[in-house]
Amino acid sequence: MDIEHRVQRLEDRAEIADLIARYGPIVDAGEGGQLAELWSDDGEYVIGDEYRFTGNQITGLTELEAHQNYLAAGCAHMLSSPQVMLDGDCAVAVNHSAVLIREGQRWVADRVSANRWELERKPEGWRVSRRSSALLDGEEAARELLAPDTRS
Amino acid sequence: MDIEHRVQRLEDRAEIADLIARYGPIVDAGEGGQLAELWSDDGEYVIGDEYRFTGNQITGLTELEAHQNYLAAGCAHMLSSPQVMLDGDCAVAVNHSAVLIREGQRWVADRVSANRWELERKPEGWRVSRRSSALLDGEEAARELLAPDTRS
Amino acid sequence: MDIEHRVQRLEDRAEIADLIARYGPIVDAGEGGQLAELWSDDGEYVIGDEYRFTGNQITGLTELEAHQNYLAAGCAHMLSSPQVMLDGDCAVAVNHSAVLIREGQRWVADRVSANRWELERKPEGWRVSRRSSALLDGEEAARELLAPDTRS
Repeated sequence: MDIEHRVQRLEDRAEIADLIARYGPIVDAGEGGQLAELWSDDGEYVIGDEYRFTGNQITGLTELEAHQNYLAAGCAHMLSSPQVMLDGDCAVAVNHSAVLIREGQRWVADRVSANRWELERKPEGWRVSRRSSALLDGEEAARELLAPDTRS
Repeated sequence: MDIEHRVQRLEDRAEIADLIARYGPIVDAGEGGQLAELWSDDGEYVIGDEYRFTGNQITGLTELEAHQNYLAAGCAHMLSSPQVMLDGDCAVAVNHSAVLIREGQRWVADRVSANRWELERKPEGWRVSRRSSALLDGEEAARELLAPDTRS
Repeated sequence: MDIEHRVQRLEDRAEIADLIARYGPIVDAGEGGQLAELWSDDGEYVIGDEYRFTGNQITGLTELEAHQNYLAAGCAHMLSSPQVMLDGDCAVAVNHSAVLIREGQRWVADRVSANRWELERKPEGWRVSRRSSALLDGEEAARELLAPDTRS
């Protein structure tokens, strides 16, 4: 692989890691408008069997009553560093997320999830085409999201 | 952008990510001397309205009674992967941190904070010029630290 | 340092970060077979004074009764981004890990540990030669794993 291609792959990884690292700060700042910029126009965010958001609906995520309650209490959406598997103009990233909520003098983990991010390279940069997440509550769904498949 | 410049930017990101990744292990090892090396000589660490440390005072952070109590109980300062925004010889990074403290047979999240790291390139490498952090307790201060502004 | 060498170092860092990022998803998916691939053939995983696994025994980690109980309850092995110190064909990485277990409607941190990863470049890529971890319970062992030594 020539040096130009190798540098491109490193830049792809850095951009994808950065894109995913922006999710937590954006939702905890309550900036729904910024949130939709992480996804492609027709991208979707599927949360277990509970929710499916597409395109502009993603902007509204931070306006949900559940999220507003989180913000009022104090919340941190902490995501672990993703494993990133590149495949040309597509990529898959897998990581964990924990939603920590202020309760009394402490924070408690109210949601802990497995995440699989499907990404694609758009003219404007890498975007999320689909984020699938599921609670790590002992059910099979979350474990399937975490299971390794592709390799970069 | 030529390949040399692109590689330099990737190295900058890697060095900044590494600098921030060193914070938690250093404080949990109780190595205050190492801690000050992360900051520039006149760098500061501002924690909400509670504390402001500058320069050599940062070395003393691990000697504070509160921190010694953390170390005696068992503690983990876990930081999430930062979003890094480069701007030449300056950079801003944003992430979350959680301080987990041993209590009985479990660990509890005693502090969960938003962090904004302002960094600058010094002759000896990237250093923190200012770290601002605020508890994610529902107040506006932490949300402002997380709100996106610059883009790399 | 020439550009080829600089790109190689960045690739080494990315590959090592990815290797470590795969640990959590693999164990939380219960895929012990995949787990052993992270280690070299004679690699070992030493957990405080409790456990020492070598080579193929690592495959069996996810079959342990304690781990099966974790999977049944719902668990997340969340690891922080490692500091990575490269030294040619060897590397050391240091990070934190937290095992979050579903309990009632919440997740609790059942184990929080310091980790030191010793890695080596093999013909097939970077592999873990030894992972040492210790609970952050106030004892000296964990603090020693976190203390910085080498610099990259």
